Order: sequence, then structure tokens, then C-alpha cells
Amino acid sequence: MASSADGFHALDEKALLEYIKATPALAKQLGNQFEGLQIKEVGDGNLNFVFIVISQSGSLVIKQAIPYVRCIGESWPMAKERAYFESKTLIEHGRLSPDHVPEVYHFDRAMCLIGMRYIEPPHIILRKGLIAGTEYPLLAEHISDYMAKTLYFTSLLYLTTTDHKRAVAEYCGNVELCRLTEQVIFSDPYKLSKYNRCTTPYLDADAEAVRKDDILKLEVAELKSKFCQNTQALIHGDLHTGSVMVTQNSTQVIDPEFSFYGPMGFDIGAYIGNLILAYFAQDGHATSENDRKAYKSWILRTLEETWKLFHQKFTALWDEHKDGPGEAYLPEIYNTAELQLLVQRKYMEDLFHDSLGFGAAKMIRRIVGVAHVEDFESISEAEKRANCERQALNFAKTLLKERRKFKSIDEVISAIQQVQS
Amino acid sequence: MASSADGFHALDEKALLEYIKATPALAKQLGNQFEGLQIKEVGDGNLNFVFIVISQSGSLVIKQAIPYVRCIGESWPMAKERAYFESKTLIEHGRLSPDHVPEVYHFDRAMCLIGMRYIEPPHIILRKGLIAGTEYPLLAEHISDYMAKTLYFTSLLYLTTTDHKRAVAEYCGNVELCRLTEQVIFSDPYKLSKYNRCTTPYLDADAEAVRKDDILKLEVAELKSKFCQNTQALIHGDLHTGSVMVTQNSTQVIDPEFSFYGPMGFDIGAYIGNLILAYFAQDGHATSENDRKAYKSWILRTLEETWKLFHQKFTALWDEHKDGPGEAYLPEIYNTAELQLLVQRKYMEDLFHDSLGFGAAKMIRRIVGVAHVEDFESISEAEKRANCERQALNFAKTLLKERRKFKSIDEVISAIQQVQS
Ligand SMILES: Nc1ncnc2c1ncn2[C@@H]1O[C@H](COP(=O)(O)OP(=O)(O)O)[C@@H](O)[C@H]1O
Ligand SMILES: Nc1ncnc2c1ncn2[C@@H]1O[C@H](COP(=O)(O)OP(=O)(O)O)[C@@H](O)[C@H]1O
Ligand SMILES: [Mg+2]
Ligand SMILES: [Mg+2]
Ligand SMILES: [Mg+2]
Ligand SMILES: [Mg+2]
Ligand SMILES: [Mg+2]
Repeated sequence: MASSADGFHALDEKALLEYIKATPALAKQLGNQFEGLQIKEVGDGNLNFVFIVISQSGSLVIKQAIPYVRCIGESWPMAKERAYFESKTLIEHGRLSPDHVPEVYHFDRAMCLIGMRYIEPPHIILRKGLIAGTEYPLLAEHISDYMAKTLYFTSLLYLTTTDHKRAVAEYCGNVELCRLTEQVIFSDPYKLSKYNRCTTPYLDADAEAVRKDDILKLEVAELKSKFCQNTQALIHGDLHTGSVMVTQNSTQVIDPEFSFYGPMGFDIGAYIGNLILAYFAQDGHATSENDRKAYKSWILRTLEETWKLFHQKFTALWDEHKDGPGEAYLPEIYNTAELQLLVQRKYMEDLFHDSLGFGAAKMIRRIVGVAHVEDFESISEAEKRANCERQALNFAKTLLKERRKFKSIDEVISAIQQVQS
Repeated sequence: MASSADGFHALDEKALLEYIKATPALAKQLGNQFEGLQIKEVGDGNLNFVFIVISQSGSLVIKQAIPYVRCIGESWPMAKERAYFESKTLIEHGRLSPDHVPEVYHFDRAMCLIGMRYIEPPHIILRKGLIAGTEYPLLAEHISDYMAKTLYFTSLLYLTTTDHKRAVAEYCGNVELCRLTEQVIFSDPYKLSKYNRCTTPYLDADAEAVRKDDILKLEVAELKSKFCQNTQALIHGDLHTGSVMVTQNSTQVIDPEFSFYGPMGFDIGAYIGNLILAYFAQDGHATSENDRKAYKSWILRTLEETWKLFHQKFTALWDEHKDGPGEAYLPEIYNTAELQLLVQRKYMEDLFHDSLGFGAAKMIRRIVGVAHVEDFESISEAEKRANCERQALNFAKTLLKERRKFKSIDEVISAIQQVQS
């Protein structure tokens, strides 16, 4: 295994064992027990290698970035320095929301390698739970907590301009991952691209309609420009239901390699957009034993609670820290309860509309862009899948274009329900 | 003259002469002639020292930043590293708009010292020309050219995300100057501050009304957040009429020490806001020989032309370079003349409203904040001055709150005219 000039080499299971033995911070987590050690590569993502390592007295996960997009191959190079930003954000978001982010044990910048807590079974990827039809009673509570804390505390509502600009500058370095998002979310779905695909032939006309929809393109441009220019908070950058691991009692957010200072609505939107995708996929998972009706209601309730709890927690943090270091709304200026309410309403309304817009864009790209979601992909019958996808796509188009007309999450939920009534 | 550990020391005339002699790039501009050399400190600004240096066969200007706010004193420290950003932006904006930016001969980072072209008489500071009632027939043409080129070419309309983020990161270093703007423009006027002043007692109630105006504060918060978060283009950052030097044939923009990646509307607004201040000051300069009516019309015509020419030049650059490196609007997506028009209309409408908002905020702070403008200060009779200022203040408040209702610059001009009808 040749090491390149910059000290990087991709590890296989065997080389990883040697690496762990030579790294006290990792060896320690395994109780320095290497006999009968199990190492298994489980990376199901698009980009990286993930190894689960289990000894008799401990466990850990090793994630290593490689210098290209794993699911495409070496023909699509991708900055392996993303691992640096992933580890930095795991640490920062973990500090802010320790209950919902795995602990980082070790980071090796040259090797682009992160050692972190193994989120052990029965944790599964949320997306898989949603496909299986499993309810998670604490999910909305947990994810809203994670989003409220990570977004509030890294925004100018809490940070000084000095701290904010310093952090913004550093995360500008994660530009290649931002460019990947720009391409696959804000560009490719709206033009012919060799990477795009859809459930053909059923959705060919729908995909073409997306490429010819001027109003949609106008709105997507606005979202793209916010994504590229608005340094609102340290966002996760890839907060879909495949970046969340869950049990009935626990919610863990992984994989912030796309993180940078961007619009909060991009995270909230990624999450709620993927919940809505899960909703529209349910009919494809219905069987004679389980029509999934109750589960669909649960998804919508979860969607509702997620936004409402986020709103509540975020504004509570704002109230609690209004005399804190943040310089956006100085207490000497925003000095009455009435005015505080007025500015919060405006802020939250804008954030709501951003979230709906980004959520819709995330939905669209999962149906006509390069990377699809298992929610739909696991519906084996193509026509049935296409029908589910079409409903989701049409709803997303409306949501993107009309987002400013929605005054509350309840109105969004009514609109979702009307699609199938 | 003691030199501090970082190699900085403030120069007086004598030390400057030695410095120039020892610096070939500067000595050359003087034809290496030091006999009968004239050196004169002319800094009239709030922050720095500016020396004009004239020899028998050449001339130059030396600008040196000092580590505090000159007009306040050492009690208000200010990053002298601003000189680095000023020189960087002079060079970058000078490359994009060479006719309207003085050439940089030399930059000394440790000494925070810039050597640049002397913008020789009859050039005067535009603000002084506006007070004197002088018309500048090419002003709108020139300044719109400067703004269109510097803003277009440093935005994502022209830059790749990679180049843009690299530049954004670097200019995050000019944070102290951004914080000064945040304080004096977006904060102090809206609260009690020891630095605020106004034409007392006449405007005391008006200043208080500003501090109690919830809607105004709500709108100012939105502008402040754009200022802090929206990295739209490399803006000058202090583009008032005191940063422009003019003759009948020439327009030169100086003093970009506040430059950073921020909202374009902040520059356009600074400029047009200060033109409108000049307009409202005219009644205070009227005499029995010159009622200033014709001059007021000229200012409004100039205002109109400035926006219209800017609009025209900016969109022409966009059309011309639509297949260029910029990634914001890919030609494969924005692929019809109709759609191109649609997105440009939206972009320019948003930019127009931003410009009006920032312009209004700049006006307000010059009447009830720390730094006033000579346009009004030179009206010696306090009550007369207060009346002019009150008209400007009331107009600015309306403009800030109602900016989204203005569809064109003509409507803005009508509104200005109605104030005095
Ligand atoms: N800390 C962890 N604990 C347990 N499983 C993990 C952990 N991190 C990643 N995984 C597993 O590896 C998969 C891929 O990890 P992820 O960080 O999403 O990689 P990628 O960036 O390639 O998408 C996840 O879907 C999950 O199943
Ligand atoms: N290149 C120049 N040529 C001629 N005069 C200049 C030049 N630069 C500055 N000045 C004069 O010095 C004054 C202060 O310069 P400026 O750059 O605005 O400093 P400050 O940052 O302190 O406001 C200007 O108002 C102008 O009169
Ligand atoms: Mg992943
Ligand atoms: Mg990933
Ligand atoms: Mg100046
Ligand atoms: Mg000045
Ligand atoms: Mg200055």
C-alpha cells in the first residue's frame, strides 16, 4: 500500500488493524484488546469508507475519505480534505448537541481519517426505519433539539462578528463539497446531464418538464444564490434521513462532511424534504397486511412536530441568550418584548420559507437527479414507483414555487394530504 | 520614532522623506528628485494619514493607517491591517475599472502604508463639489461604470465558486472594519450611544423617534444581517461622496479600506444615499443669487442616470459574459432570452431594493449617528440645518420602510420631489 507524498494512503482492513494498534487514542477504545478483533467495511454512502471495529472490550468506527467519489470512481475526483471539515463539525456540533452527535476519538488530517464512537445496534439509519414503517416517538424532539442548538449557536444570533467571520473563512476551504451540492442539487436536475436519471419511461416527460419550467428555474436560482452566499450558520450540509441513526430512544446525526457556513434552511429543508419523500413512498410499501395509512399519519405528525419544536427551541435559545455575545440584535435596540416578538416572527418566517424551498429542491433532485433514495428505489415495480415519485415531484414543484404563501407547517401538511385526496 | 515589534511606526513628514528615498518604487515616481520636495499631510478623513508628495518631476500620495480611529484618538483602537485590504482592493478594482481607481505604486504591509497616484488638482472631493453647486456631466456615466464593473466581476455571476470562496475567506480578515460599520450604521443610531449626535435641540425629538421606531428597527435588522452574511461581491464598503474625487472629465474612487465581500446594494446605496443627502442640503446653501433650484434638478437627474446606467451596464456585462466562468446561472439552464430576462429582472429588482434600503440607512446615520456630513455641517445656521436634515431623515425613514414598493428610480425621484412640494 503505497503512501502518497502528502502522507495519505487508503486503508484496507489489514492496514487498519496496524494503524489502530499504533494509535493510542484508538487502541484505548478497544481496551487495547486486539485478539479476535472484528473489522468490517460497511460504507453504504456515496463517498467514503467506513469500518466498524469491535473488540472484546470496546468498539469504534473509522471513517476515511478517499480522493474521489466512491460511487462513481476515480473519474470524479473529490477533495479528501472534506474529512477535516467533517471532524471539525462533528466536534463543534457535538459540543453543542452532545446527545445527538457521536464522539470523535481521533483525527488524522494527512490520512483523512476519523475515529469516532460506534453507534451500535439496534441503531439503524433512519431512512431504513422509515421504509420499514417504524415509528420513533422521540425523533422530532431529538432532531429539533439538534437543529436548534447547532444552528442557533453558530449563527450571528449568538456569535460575535469576529468569531463568525473567522469560522466562515475556515469553512470556505470546504469549497469542493459545496460545488458538488451546487451541481447535483441546484444545477443538474434543471438541465440535461449525463448523471441524471429517473424512472424511465414513466417519468421522462416529468423530468423534461422540470428542465423547461422557467418559474422553477427562477426560484432555484434564488435558493442557489443563498446557498453560495449566505453564511448564516454552520450547517451540516447533508442532513437527509440517511445521515441520521435511530432507535426508539436515541437519535444520532452522522456525516457532516458537507458542512460550511450556509443558510440554516438548507439543513432544515434537507431533513423535512426527506421526510416528505418517505411519506410519498409509503404507498409503494403498502401490502395487504399493512396499508401504511397509520404510518403516513405518523410521518406527517412528526413533520409537524419537528418544525414546531424547532421553532420553539430555537426562539427559546434566542430569548435565553439575548444578552449574550451575539451582535445581530442588540438588547439596547430590541428592547421591548413586543419588538423582540416582531423580529423573531420575521426571522422565523423567512427561515420557514427558506426551509420549504430547500426542502423542495432536495426532493426534486432525488427524483430526477443523479442520487436517488432508497425510499423509492426499494419499490421494485417501476410503474408504482413512478407514481409515488410523480406525486412527490409535483408537490415539490408547488412547494418551491409557492413557498412564500405557506403561513404554517399545518398548511404544508394540508397541502400534502390534498395530493392524495 | 520608535518602531514597534511588528515593524510598524507612524511616519511624519521628515521620516516619510527618508522612507521614500529608500523605496525605489516610490522614488521613481518622483523622478528620483528630492530637492525642493513638498510633503503635506492632508488627511481630512476619520481614520488615516494622507501625505501628498510633489517633486519637480513627479508626485505621489502616501496613505498610512494607524492603529486607532484618528478622529477619536487612541481610545478607539482600529486594526491597522485595514491598509492591506485597502491596497488589495485598490489593485483589484483598479484592474477592473482602471479609469476610475488610482494606481498603486507600492504597499508595505508592516508599515500599513500605500503609495498611490496623486489625483492632482483640479480634482476635488465630490462632496465638496456638490456643496459648491458644481455640475459634473460625466459623473453618472463614470460612477455607474465603476460600480457595474467592480461589482459584476467580483460576484458569482462572473467568478467560479472556488475563486469566490477563496476571496471571501481572505476578506473575512477585515472584520474590524466591518464591525465599525455594523456599529455606526446599523446599531448606534437606533439606541442611546455616547457617540451619537444631532443638531440639538431641533432634532432631539426626531432622534428619539428613530430610537423608538419598531418598524424601522425591524427593517434595519434585515439590512444588517445582509451586511454581515451576504458575500455577494467585493464591495468598496465606504462609497460615499467623500470617497470620490472629480473634475469635469474625470472620476476617481479612493479609500476602499472597508472593503470585503458583502452586499452590492451597500455600495450603490452609500453612493445614492449621499447624493440624496446632498440634495436635501441644497436649500441650506441657497443664496439670493443662487436659489439652487437648477442644481437640485441636476442632482436628481444624476441620481436617475446613475441607477439607469448602472442597470444597463451591469446587465450588459452579464449578457456579454453569460458563457463565462460564473456558475450562478449556467447557460444550459438559463437557456432562452425570455428566461435570461426573467432572472435578470428579479436580480436587479432585489438589488434595487437592497440599494434603497442601505442608502436610507446611510442617510439616517449621517443625521443622528456619530459621523455627520459636510453637506449639512457647512450650513451654519442651526435651525436651517435642522430643517434640511429633518426632510432628509423623514425621507430616509420612508425609503427604508417602504423600499419594496418602489418599482423604479423615477418613483424614488418623485417621492423626493414631493417632500418639498
Ligand atoms: N459512527 C457510526 N456508527 C455506526 N455506523 C456508522 C457510523 N458512521 C457511519 N456508519 C455507517 O456507515 C454508513 C456510511 O457512513 P457515512 O458517514 O454516511 O458515509 P458517507 O459520507 O460515505 O455517506 C452509514 O450509513 C452507517 O450505516
Ligand atoms: N490619491 C489621492 N490623491 C489626491 N488626494 C488624495 C488621495 N488619496 C486621498 N486624498 C486626499 O486625502 C483625503 C483623505 O483620504 P482618504 O483615503 O479618504 O482617507 P480616510 O480613510 O482617512 O478617510 C481625501 O479626502 C483626499 O482629499
Ligand atoms: Mg452518508
Ligand atoms: Mg457523506
Ligand atoms: Mg475617506
Ligand atoms: Mg475622507
Ligand atoms: Mg477611509
